[in-house]
This record gives sequence, C-alpha cells and structure tokens, in this order.
Amino acid sequence: MNDQDLKPFLYPRSVAVIGATERPGSWGSFIIEGLRAFPFAGSIYPVNHQAERVFGIPAFRSVSDIPGPVDLAVLTIPENQVEKTLKECGEKGVQGVVIISAGFGEAVEGGKEREKGLVALAHTYGMRLMGPNVSGVFNLFADFNASAAPIGHLIKTPVAAVCQGGYAIYDLLAHGYYRKMGVGIFIHTGNEADLTTTDFLAMMGDLPEVQAVVMYIEAVKDGRRFLETARKVAEAKPVVVYKAGKTPGASRAAASHTGALAGSFKVYEGAFDQANVVSCPTMELLLPLGQALAERPPLKGRRVVILTMGGSWGVALSDALESEGLRVPNLSPGLQKRLRDMGMPVRASVKNPVDIGASGLFLAEDLLTELGREILRSGEADALILHGFGRPGMDAEGTPPTLRFYQEINKNIIRAYAAMEKEFQIPVLIGSAYGPSESQAVFDLTREGIRIYQRLDETAQILSRMFRYWERRGKDRPLSEQAALGAERSSARG
Amino acid sequence: MNDQDLKPFLYPRSVAVIGATERPGSWGSFIIEGLRAFPFAGSIYPVNHQAERVFGIPAFRSVSDIPGPVDLAVLTIPENQVEKTLKECGEKGVQGVVIISAGFGEAVEGGKEREKGLVALAHTYGMRLMGPNVSGVFNLFADFNASAAPIGHLIKTPVAAVCQGGYAIYDLLAHGYYRKMGVGIFIHTGNEADLTTTDFLAMMGDLPEVQAVVMYIEAVKDGRRFLETARKVAEAKPVVVYKAGKTPGASRAAASHTGALAGSFKVYEGAFDQANVVSCPTMELLLPLGQALAERPPLKGRRVVILTMGGSWGVALSDALESEGLRVPNLSPGLQKRLRDMGMPVRASVKNPVDIGASGLFLAEDLLTELGREILRSGEADALILHGFGRPGMDAEGTPPTLRFYQEINKNIIRAYAAMEKEFQIPVLIGSAYGPSESQAVFDLTREGIRIYQRLDETAQILSRMFRYWERRGKDRPLSEQAALGAERSSARG
Repeated sequence: MNDQDLKPFLYPRSVAVIGATERPGSWGSFIIEGLRAFPFAGSIYPVNHQAERVFGIPAFRSVSDIPGPVDLAVLTIPENQVEKTLKECGEKGVQGVVIISAGFGEAVEGGKEREKGLVALAHTYGMRLMGPNVSGVFNLFADFNASAAPIGHLIKTPVAAVCQGGYAIYDLLAHGYYRKMGVGIFIHTGNEADLTTTDFLAMMGDLPEVQAVVMYIEAVKDGRRFLETARKVAEAKPVVVYKAGKTPGASRAAASHTGALAGSFKVYEGAFDQANVVSCPTMELLLPLGQALAERPPLKGRRVVILTMGGSWGVALSDALESEGLRVPNLSPGLQKRLRDMGMPVRASVKNPVDIGASGLFLAEDLLTELGREILRSGEADALILHGFGRPGMDAEGTPPTLRFYQEINKNIIRAYAAMEKEFQIPVLIGSAYGPSESQAVFDLTREGIRIYQRLDETAQILSRMFRYWERRGKDRPLSEQAALGAERSSARG
Repeated sequence: MNDQDLKPFLYPRSVAVIGATERPGSWGSFIIEGLRAFPFAGSIYPVNHQAERVFGIPAFRSVSDIPGPVDLAVLTIPENQVEKTLKECGEKGVQGVVIISAGFGEAVEGGKEREKGLVALAHTYGMRLMGPNVSGVFNLFADFNASAAPIGHLIKTPVAAVCQGGYAIYDLLAHGYYRKMGVGIFIHTGNEADLTTTDFLAMMGDLPEVQAVVMYIEAVKDGRRFLETARKVAEAKPVVVYKAGKTPGASRAAASHTGALAGSFKVYEGAFDQANVVSCPTMELLLPLGQALAERPPLKGRRVVILTMGGSWGVALSDALESEGLRVPNLSPGLQKRLRDMGMPVRASVKNPVDIGASGLFLAEDLLTELGREILRSGEADALILHGFGRPGMDAEGTPPTLRFYQEINKNIIRAYAAMEKEFQIPVLIGSAYGPSESQAVFDLTREGIRIYQRLDETAQILSRMFRYWERRGKDRPLSEQAALGAERSSARG
C-alpha cells in the first residue's frame, strides 16, 4: 500500500459528487452542502442526470462530461447503479471513490461477493475504494468536508478519527463540540471492501498535523498488519481504540452473525497492549481520551495529588484513581509543613487529598494558586487534580453581584491551575460535578478552551491510560506470534 | 433504639438555632434561611446572645429563655461552647441536637474522647445527637429544612439520602436538579458520636413517604446491626450504598489513618449482597440509581431489547449491557416478521438491536411507537431501551421551522415510549448522547419529568442493579456469621 493511493481521499484537488441533488434529507445534498460550507480550494463537480445546477454549482450529466481531472468521486446513488458508475469513474481516471451507497455485505445475501466484484473492477483502473456503506470523510486541515457531520459542530484539533462505524461518531462530535473537542480528520471505512482502518491508520502516522488517532473498530481484517501498523504509529503518537463487539450480543449486533469474535476480546486486549494501543473503556471517552493524549504533557509516574473543595469528593476520587492503578500518596512531612506555613489552617487536611473546602480559604485566590504551585515544585506529584470549583449558577439579568463575584474568583482559580500545566509540564486536570448547562463558570471556561471533567471515573480512566501509554512508549515490546495470530484468527470472519 | 427518639430530627414541632445570625456565609445564617424558605409549620427560635431579631424572627439570648418546648436544637456555634450549650439544651428538655460544629474526632487529637463525653452528657438528659461535624438535615415532606443545601435545588422525591459525608451530596443534589432528580429527606450523620446511618436507615424503613434509600458511607460502626437493618429495609424498599474508601489512598483520605478498612471492601461487597443492598459503582450514580429503583417497575429478567437510531450505538450499548450480566438476545422469527410486516424495510435490522436509523423511518411517528408496543406485547423483552432521539440543537429566535418540527417529532416519540413503561409495567429507558445543554428536546423532556440517560455504561449499570435487586427480594438469604463478623471486624476501628 502506497500512501499516495490514499492522498485523494484527504487532499483531493477536485471532487465529483455523483448523485448530487438539492432534495432535503438526501445524501447527495448533505455532501454538496458539506463541501460548500468550507473554503475548499479544489473544484467541486456535482453530477446529476437532470439538473443544470445543484446549490448554484454547475452540474454535469455524468462524470465523463467533467472537463478537468477528478481526484475523488463520492457516490450518493442507489446501490444498483454503483457498478456502472464505477466503470465511468475508471474511464475518467478518477483516483479514489467513496461509496456512501449501502445495501451490500452488511444487508443482503451475496453482498460480500458483490463487493469483491467492485474492488476487482476498481483495481482494473488503479482506483481505490472507501466503503461501501459509509457516511463520508473530512480533513479540516485542507478545508475539505465530504461528510454529513453538522457543520456547526466541527472543531479542528490535532486528533484524527479513523472509524469503521460512523453515525455514532457524529454524535460524539456534536457532544464534543460543547466541550471544544473535535477531530481535524474523520475517516469512515464501513464495509471495507478495499481500504481498511489499518490503511488509514498508517497514513495518519505520517501526517504531521495529527497528534493522536482515535478509532472505532468492530473487527479488523488483518490482525497482524493492524498490530504492526499500530505499534509503529504509537511510537510517534497515541492510538486510542474503542473495540466494539466485546460480548456475544454486541458481536452479533456488529456483524449480524454470532461466533468467533465474541470470545476473542481478551486476545485483542493482549495484542493492543503489545502494540501500545490505548484501549478505550467506553465509546463516550474516545474523544476526551484522544484529546488528553494529544494535548497534555506526558504523565511520568503514578502519583496523583488532589486538591478538593469537598472531603467526600476527595475520598471518591481517590477510590477512582487507585482502582485504575494510580496512587494518591501522602505528601511528605516537609511539604505538608510548607503548606501549613503558607496558611492552611489546622482543620484542613494537607495530607493528600488536600482539602480546600475545609480550609475556609476558598476565596483566597492567591494563596490557593500558590498551594498548587508549591505542590508542583516539590516533585511529589506526577499529576495534579483540582476538583470542586465552578459551583452551579447561571448568569441571568437578576444575578446578584456577589454571585458574579464568586464566579469570577472560581474562574480565576481554575484558569491559574490550567496554566500551571504548561509551566511545569505536569498534567493538571480540572474537575467539577457540574456541566456547562449548570455552571456559568464551567460554561465560560469551556469556551475559553479549558477542559473541565464532570466525572471522577473518567478523570481516573484518562490519567491511567496516559500513564500506561507513556510508560511503554519507546520500550521494546516485541509483538508475539501468539498475539498476532490470535488477533488474525479472531478477525478471519471479516 | 426507639424510632420515637429520631422523630424530632425529621418532624420537629419547634426548632432552636443556637448561633443564629445574619452574617453572610455563616452556618447560623444558612440554617435560618433554610428554615424560612419553606412553609414550616412549627416554631423557629433563633438563639443569639446579642440580636433582638434574626432575619426578622424574634431571637432569644439562650435556649432557656424560649417560652415553649423545643424539640430540636441545631448548634452552629464554635466548638468550645458545645458542652455548655448541650447542658442548657438538656435542662430545657430538648429532645434532639444537631451539632454542625466541627473540630472534634475528625480533626484533633483527643477529639473522639471528647465526643464520648458529649454523648454521655446528652444521654443524661435523654437527648440524642446528630453529628458533630455535619451540614444539617431536611425533610421536605414536613417542609422542614435545616441544611445549607441551595434552596432552589431541592426537589421532593420518594428517595431519602442517609449519608455519613455531606458536602458532596449537596453537589449531587444540585446536579440532579437539572435532571429533576432529588431527595425528599436528607440526613448527614458526620462523626456519628451518637446516632449512626444505621439508626436512620431503620427509620427510613418505616416511613411510607420513602420508596428508596441512598447512602454515602465511609465506615459503619456496627457491621452486624447495619446488615440486619439493611436486609430488613431492603425487603420493603431498595437500599443503595456508595461505599467510599475502597482503596488504601481513599481509605486514608476518609479516615486520616491507614489500615484495616482498605482490605475489607470485598467483605463489604459480599455482605451487601447477602443483605440485598444495592452497591453503587460510582458516586455520581447514587441519585439516578436510587431514583430508578424508586420509580420504575421491577426488572424481572435479563432480556433487554434496544431500539437505536445509530448502529454503532446499538453495538456499544449491547457491549455495556452484556458486560453487566444482562442479555441482548435475538428477537424470535415470528416477532421479527411482525416488525417487518409493520413496515421495517429490509435494510434495517429487526434482530435486536432494532436499527431505526437504517430504516429511513425516523419521522414516521406512529409506526415507530407501534414497533415498541409490539415488542413489549410480545413478552420477549424484560426491558426496552430507546437510544438516539433528541438530536442536538437549541431553540433560538432564528431556529428554522423545519428544525422545530423535527424536534417536536423527536419529543413525541420519546414521550410515547416513556408512557409505555406505565402501561406495560416493563422498564423503558430513554437514552441520548446529548445533555440538556445540547439538545432542546432533552432539555424540554427533562423538565417534563422524563429521565434521559446520557451514558451507555450508566444505563447498563442501572438496569443490572435493578435486575439483581428484584431477583433477590423476597428470597431467603440468611446472613452468614462470616459476612456479619467480617463487616464488624473491618469497621471496628470506627
């Protein structure tokens, strides 16, 4: 596989949308609207056998009628026209084809055979295929968006998403948007008649814009090649995988037939480990985890120090962290003394968790930020978590000035801690029980780009996976025959 | 322990707040303001050694000066005045005392001894104590609120909270508020010098207003009595416990000393099992889980049927459910055929998960609700989950009519499924990736009282615990000597 083969899928100079239309709710309109919404530098060619123009862009009867060269064709046509159209694309010299059309191997008897025919046909012309049964592709680094993702929800970050399933990823993106999370590149491989997630993963390894890759995978076709590719990419940037189909029911749901895959999740996990692939515990964590690995400094040890506004949060957060293999150790007597000397009253614990809530100092902005700096300076923390600022309350016309004042102090303290991460190059995570719809402070700070985690278990899951990734990176972990073969066997059904 | 002893804490006819003041941010002002915010039928007596009135209510120099009888005294005074004040309360004939004051066993050397002295003193007069080191108590069924909980966030539900720690519970209540979740009764036992969570748990068992009890516990003082009480209460209503201090760090955080507790969490879990206490996996799930157990029909089997708008959500949700011991079985051929005959196209899966997203029918309101009714009628579902409606988008002045129209259809479908739960007496859970700040539909429906779960793992955790609770209820599970002793030993340090 040559990376050049894949370039047309992410950096096309010209795109034909075959089946382009203005009909609301249709894929032909989604893709054209997606392309138009960005200042795409290449040419856009709607192909429609009747219309003169589609959304104002001159249209062509067939791909053959297009005057210039066509790098990429996106097919939004009924499945029974796919073969005929592929042939026309081949004759035209198209390099890559995205087949949105569904109704092949995933749905009907004999569909897999038909897919093989599509691939054979495409390869005759030197064309590569993405799909069938996909929802598109985008590369915001090239202002290229041939997907149905809601435009308003796309945020360009150095995280790339390479996914076998797609629709739910749009949901994750929409959800992430409100937290300023997103992906710069989105690839949906669907039935993978030709190109697979492995092919695109390899390409992501070579793109300097990409700092981390998140993947939603139901099954890999070639276990050994996937693991070797992932291991290589993971040496340069984190690869995070949510592997669906862990259980029999889910496996059946994924594949619409029972068997092989179900028992093999342990094999996958073992193989992921050897390749230093980060296994994502829930689908919802895919984006936050990828984002954390891409943008936070490495976590170099297990020692986490907690500053909390509520004793019970401190206890529960300690539970969550230690259950994930991290540690919440006592601070040294020397550091404890220094924190006391700075002004922590005798009633407040300085042992870790450090209990700010009990300190009565929750408005002493300068002192509170100095506590954090002292801890980070001490070398006793591999990571710091500030939990419990950003209390509820949304601004309204009648919001009393005192509440606004408290909110500003809350925000200043959180901003100060977020800034410490860069200064000390030690991960500093901010937690609050409240989401952006509950707390004005959380809402405002999220818009400023500060990440605020709502759940203790997610905070722990993110930190523990950061630790494991960085602990293993650069270390020699030969891929065992067994793991490679296991993953291979378990995916042979694909 | 006579339940009569506890009545003054939840149904007082008169309350003295000793240390009442208008000073902002002080406990004396929180408690008085809390009491005033409800139409409390009893008498409120501020005690302040200087002021004539506190927030407009006539104040007294000391509790002895109060003309009528005093059922409950709430102490918001410096810790060094507690003994003297207790004595005055005893002389006055006060029945119950809530000691908000901190600075005893949790903070200083010799504090535990001093607490024993307080109890001895109180018992001389036949008084009972809650605390010290607590944040109050409320019973919304009696319009009685002597707590610092933000008034605006209190929602009266048949769930009672009996907690050793308190501050974080206020956070849970504030967070729950935006989801129409709350507790009708809140009890904070703190250092438990006298009354414990077990004492109040027994009382909750007898209150008809209470349908479920949620508990935050760091350590129980008398393991055997706790388990026997819990088992008895759990025969009538669910008891949900978040047991903090599972790990060494958390245990240290909870108790400010290492040891015994850490290794004993497994003993707790085993003992909880025997008592049919529902063990809560995260602190954040305490309220949603209690609410589900209080208000949903029993889950009578493991078979869960999923209707989803996105194939990948169906796969991931199947994973989450089966990982929790539930099942996502294929529907019978007969039922599959009936769903097809109703109008599900060949491309949409009717196997379970039923894939509505692929059906192209997502606007066919009547058909979609009929699908659910057919499944519930079939007897093949012990629970039904509808996932993926309530897409993002918030109403604004410029919201186009088509978007509002889609939102209305989304809302109607969700409403219809929520209503099926009552009709069929089978749990029907609604899931959406979006929260109330992201989706107008989710926001509106949440305000109508419909629960919409955002996370797949939480949905699975709730259903699996509902199943286990109802499976065991009514079955004879003798409490083993071992479990009782184990819990006893592990908590002996208290």
